[in-house]
Amino acid sequence: MQNNKESTLLKRYKYPDFTQEPFLSAPDVKLAKAPLDQVAPENFHATGIYPEYFKIDGHWLLAKESRMDCVPVYRDGEIDVIELRLLKAGEPVVTGRTENCEEGIFVHTDGFGELKEASDAFAFRQGRSRETAFSRDYDELYQVLRHDREHGKIVWVIGPAFAFDYDARRAISKLIAAGYVHALLAGNALATHDLEAAYLKTALGQDIYTQRNRHNGHYNHLTTINRVKLRGGIRQFIRDENIDNGIIYSCEKYNVPYVLAGSIRDDGPLPSVISDAYKAQDAMRDQVRDATTVICMATMLHSISVGNMTSSYRVMPDGTVRQVYFYCVDISEFAVNKLSDRGSLACRGIITNVQDFIVTLSKGLGL
Amino acid sequence: MQNNKESTLLKRYKYPDFTQEPFLSAPDVKLAKAPLDQVAPENFHATGIYPEYFKIDGHWLLAKESRMDCVPVYRDGEIDVIELRLLKAGEPVVTGRTENCEEGIFVHTDGFGELKEASDAFAFRQGRSRETAFSRDYDELYQVLRHDREHGKIVWVIGPAFAFDYDARRAISKLIAAGYVHALLAGNALATHDLEAAYLKTALGQDIYTQRNRHNGHYNHLTTINRVKLRGGIRQFIRDENIDNGIIYSCEKYNVPYVLAGSIRDDGPLPSVISDAYKAQDAMRDQVRDATTVICMATMLHSISVGNMTSSYRVMPDGTVRQVYFYCVDISEFAVNKLSDRGSLACRGIITNVQDFIVTLSKGLGL
Amino acid sequence: MQNNKESTLLKRYKYPDFTQEPFLSAPDVKLAKAPLDQVAPENFHATGIYPEYFKIDGHWLLAKESRMDCVPVYRDGEIDVIELRLLKAGEPVVTGRTENCEEGIFVHTDGFGELKEASDAFAFRQGRSRETAFSRDYDELYQVLRHDREHGKIVWVIGPAFAFDYDARRAISKLIAAGYVHALLAGNALATHDLEAAYLKTALGQDIYTQRNRHNGHYNHLTTINRVKLRGGIRQFIRDENIDNGIIYSCEKYNVPYVLAGSIRDDGPLPSVISDAYKAQDAMRDQVRDATTVICMATMLHSISVGNMTSSYRVMPDGTVRQVYFYCVDISEFAVNKLSDRGSLACRGIITNVQDFIVTLSKGLGL
Amino acid sequence: MQNNKESTLLKRYKYPDFTQEPFLSAPDVKLAKAPLDQVAPENFHATGIYPEYFKIDGHWLLAKESRMDCVPVYRDGEIDVIELRLLKAGEPVVTGRTENCEEGIFVHTDGFGELKEASDAFAFRQGRSRETAFSRDYDELYQVLRHDREHGKIVWVIGPAFAFDYDARRAISKLIAAGYVHALLAGNALATHDLEAAYLKTALGQDIYTQRNRHNGHYNHLTTINRVKLRGGIRQFIRDENIDNGIIYSCEKYNVPYVLAGSIRDDGPLPSVISDAYKAQDAMRDQVRDATTVICMATMLHSISVGNMTSSYRVMPDGTVRQVYFYCVDISEFAVNKLSDRGSLACRGIITNVQDFIVTLSKGLGL
Repeated sequence: MQNNKESTLLKRYKYPDFTQEPFLSAPDVKLAKAPLDQVAPENFHATGIYPEYFKIDGHWLLAKESRMDCVPVYRDGEIDVIELRLLKAGEPVVTGRTENCEEGIFVHTDGFGELKEASDAFAFRQGRSRETAFSRDYDELYQVLRHDREHGKIVWVIGPAFAFDYDARRAISKLIAAGYVHALLAGNALATHDLEAAYLKTALGQDIYTQRNRHNGHYNHLTTINRVKLRGGIRQFIRDENIDNGIIYSCEKYNVPYVLAGSIRDDGPLPSVISDAYKAQDAMRDQVRDATTVICMATMLHSISVGNMTSSYRVMPDGTVRQVYFYCVDISEFAVNKLSDRGSLACRGIITNVQDFIVTLSKGLGL
Repeated sequence: MQNNKESTLLKRYKYPDFTQEPFLSAPDVKLAKAPLDQVAPENFHATGIYPEYFKIDGHWLLAKESRMDCVPVYRDGEIDVIELRLLKAGEPVVTGRTENCEEGIFVHTDGFGELKEASDAFAFRQGRSRETAFSRDYDELYQVLRHDREHGKIVWVIGPAFAFDYDARRAISKLIAAGYVHALLAGNALATHDLEAAYLKTALGQDIYTQRNRHNGHYNHLTTINRVKLRGGIRQFIRDENIDNGIIYSCEKYNVPYVLAGSIRDDGPLPSVISDAYKAQDAMRDQVRDATTVICMATMLHSISVGNMTSSYRVMPDGTVRQVYFYCVDISEFAVNKLSDRGSLACRGIITNVQDFIVTLSKGLGL
Repeated sequence: MQNNKESTLLKRYKYPDFTQEPFLSAPDVKLAKAPLDQVAPENFHATGIYPEYFKIDGHWLLAKESRMDCVPVYRDGEIDVIELRLLKAGEPVVTGRTENCEEGIFVHTDGFGELKEASDAFAFRQGRSRETAFSRDYDELYQVLRHDREHGKIVWVIGPAFAFDYDARRAISKLIAAGYVHALLAGNALATHDLEAAYLKTALGQDIYTQRNRHNGHYNHLTTINRVKLRGGIRQFIRDENIDNGIIYSCEKYNVPYVLAGSIRDDGPLPSVISDAYKAQDAMRDQVRDATTVICMATMLHSISVGNMTSSYRVMPDGTVRQVYFYCVDISEFAVNKLSDRGSLACRGIITNVQDFIVTLSKGLGL
Repeated sequence: MQNNKESTLLKRYKYPDFTQEPFLSAPDVKLAKAPLDQVAPENFHATGIYPEYFKIDGHWLLAKESRMDCVPVYRDGEIDVIELRLLKAGEPVVTGRTENCEEGIFVHTDGFGELKEASDAFAFRQGRSRETAFSRDYDELYQVLRHDREHGKIVWVIGPAFAFDYDARRAISKLIAAGYVHALLAGNALATHDLEAAYLKTALGQDIYTQRNRHNGHYNHLTTINRVKLRGGIRQFIRDENIDNGIIYSCEKYNVPYVLAGSIRDDGPLPSVISDAYKAQDAMRDQVRDATTVICMATMLHSISVGNMTSSYRVMPDGTVRQVYFYCVDISEFAVNKLSDRGSLACRGIITNVQDFIVTLSKGLGL
């Protein structure tokens, strides 16, 4: 049961009234077959982050899971929202590029009162900057995390900077131990530096606390990768080398699933890194599908990727529709505003050093 | 009495041994008269941030107070380090541009072991970036502040961003109340926004907590300035309008001296803002002269100004020489590295949002 | 006479029709006396960047010169827009904080079709970033500069970075020689580095072309300042030291007025630098009053200051109202967007290195 | 034959004199077998960007192609430098972590006089910033490009920003047509936006010249990808849709090889994008192996990746050793300095908007 504060926190979704116009007299949506694998038909419809309804056989179907720039496909009586590259020849794809029922498509941009909020936002400031005040964002975030620890799914997306700082590594480990992390999305670099820190107490050869260079420390990340491979995997490495701290260690200990995506700048990679970009995207989306809060920190590439695959709503197991919280934390206004640019009105940006952010956050949660 | 930790904290100054060469056979320094007011003689010597000794009548005199880009003048048996603009015609100025006794000038660049530290630093990283780990810097800073609260003078230099955030204003107020602030250097904008926050609960018209725009809120800073002027000054305004919170309020309450420098972007200005840039510089240097720790936050202009006027050492009342801690905190690598560029090896840079910095700091100090 | 292209360039101002409602039945504006020097009466009106009309004795008067955050004062049958600090006790100040004739005040926010443009702008992008395309902005700027060289007044506001680069100094000198610069606003640093470059071929001691350090080069800016003072002024220095290149030299040669504002970070300052921030502000506004194009480059402080004192329109000598072009060029999105934040919808931001900007511009103009 | 200017441009490589000590009495290198596929033996040696020699059977062998963080493997009488992931069980890997012949390994860090240059560099500035002067870098770059168009291989690495600007696209197309581009490395986004610009005159739905939003323009990149896939590939799309401009078009027309690496943020991807990060890395290194000049622009991910795989020297077909020019152009100091951080003393950083950079460059080359 939610208390009052939490009820305030989550805005109630205002379901469309399909017994009214223009829903009643709207035509059924037109479906067209994909001409080839991975190719959509002419005039295909593309999805966004808002709830979308499609009229089929006189009934309005809500896409259960949505994301940016995908196509709605009618499968087994439901609407699946899938990437173009996953489309199969012959599948029935929704066509039409209107959003207000003209072609049987309704994009519900105001289900949580976003329009009002957006116009308020426009009234004062476009974008968020280093001078934006963030006290209230932190306070809201504490509430969101406390609520979703019990009632939702919190997905964290983190860049390699986290492995460089002693306090930041400790803070995120505490968050994992305390149940605030339900999935972790990262890259080979984060995992490598974190394991190096646990194994050799350095990150890229520097002592993670004193920042002093170790002799031949530039070997340390390669040595770590090499040792993990010799042991046969991350789990075996943790066991055999008696690793007892860090982000990846904590994920393993508390059974938090993590996805490590490969990139062209990687050394290694570590075993279990997904080398194919699109398979990695699929694995990430599998974690994001049922997320209710997503926090992206210090990684523009992963933030944009996850921002594109996160919708503004979630259909909960009991069928209710709730909003999804999406945060982007970065020291660069460019990175944060780029996400807002892409249409994520629902995106809260916080401009700061992520080391301070995560330490502040863990203290604010009493950890 | 200092405990062990503090003894470690402050590096012992290694006095030059003037009974050895090259000091013994070095010539006396050559003095030349300033030809005009504000004009130094040919070949004038300019000072830096390190302790400098000048041989006069066979004795080596240490400049008691130094700073960048000033000239040493021999007055009343001592060496004063003064700005070119304060030089009077006829005053005897030290000439010579060597640093190793050749002309009777010794610049002591390694009194606190800086050279070793610099070469260590070079070994790993040039400059500090958003990915630098700062845990150890924070830990050092807690020690420095605890020590200098009792045994030193802590000067804070702050930009207007502090007035925008609810938690940041509260954190800095606590630091003032707890005795960690011995002087505050800022500009008209910081004071205006802070007083607006206290008087009308907004900063530039936005509620400082919710960030919602107030109706006609863009009048608020002008209204605040106007009201302060009507009341006859900041102190009277605080009394008559029952101001009970904020940075300027706390300075007044705890008798912390503050210097407000004017700038060309100011509205107003508030009474007590110093409109002349060079008189403001003088007033700032008056506070910096005996500072033992200087922390510059979120203001490139003031940070560079204060960076230039802060030397790396201080001659304490008992005659001993101790090092000066200088921190520059900013979200921009450019701002932080610009200070290092200017020769301040002694400058620690922390790249973060200053709101988070000050909140983390006050929590770390148990406030 | 303007050719077609130029006619397209300058949007025609759409005068309000005062013979219609709500102008006809609007009340006269209420004037109230300033209670003290520098203090406005309760409910004072503050101006912005748009044309504002005030109904007095049944007639609508346009403020001939406006700027942000000033007060309209009724003097000699006209409305003067003046800074609070220049207000005299007893002067009649316009009161009221509405903008649509309710209190006899009409703020004409759409005289040049800005509202339509703003809504277009909102449709795609908020703010400008490093990824914004600027080809069209350059093309427009070439037209604006060619037109205003003959028919307007072009004011340039430049930061010290210009003096560091060989090609940039040459490009701006060519612009001055070719008549594209009608006034220059800068600080002590720009002038010092530029004169150092002309006198000693270095900027802060580095060769401005090869960037190699000169021996004792850190003396060069002080030596330059000292020499200028010895010579008695910039003009005498240029003559006596046979200076034949650079930005300040070109201004002197082509009789382009320049204002040098002092700041707390200055060494020196050079003679003719204005040390009082508010007198400097006044001198800057004197140049901006009749500007038709303003280009701010690489100086956040000066850009914001000038942005605040530049209105979006100009009443030309023949009484017609024309728009003012305002450009802000900086490598930092923060700096550029900060100006837009402050209400300057009319502000075009270009995110780039100003060295490249000025070289591209001068080549684009065929110099 | 090289003219004088070019001879100055390319520093002569100073071959080590192996008839002297410490080379003569150095031991042979120790080889150890890789215990497993992708796993190096204990104490494996890792390579950097400098020429490295390995003593085998009394002879010093130069690794013909090197890169950061790889292992030297003795194959067929030569030293191959390969990624850990490409190592096969049983292959003989060089061991030892010294660099001055102690273990038969000599890392030649000063073959082109780098040490002197580095110490000069340290003398003035650490890192490059927005205020660095770049005139000389441009002039050098013109020479480098003119020389390597005939005598070398110029590889360009470009981010998506290039496709957004009308002039930038034209400039790079001219560079391709004029023979200054021998290979292009990019990602799916660059190619998608560039083809969208050619096909629909927009980038992400905005007109690339006017920046006006097209109706439903957010479909344009998906439409483009979909059409390319329908046509069966990029080449077929260009032919069938009569594409006649742009970066990819120019590569196809002038037979310039390009590598498109996939990433987790991609829509699509386009056909011919390499989805596996490590296969993409291999394809990129295949182009970089014999590069003599590498220019990375506006893409931190690709720049770091290519920076790591580019050595500071090249063994030319005639057996001589020449230096490799490596440029990193970005608007962010962080991105540029990150590359320098990683050891690339040979890296020249230019901080600017890449649109201006490429336009300036093409004009400077007379295109």
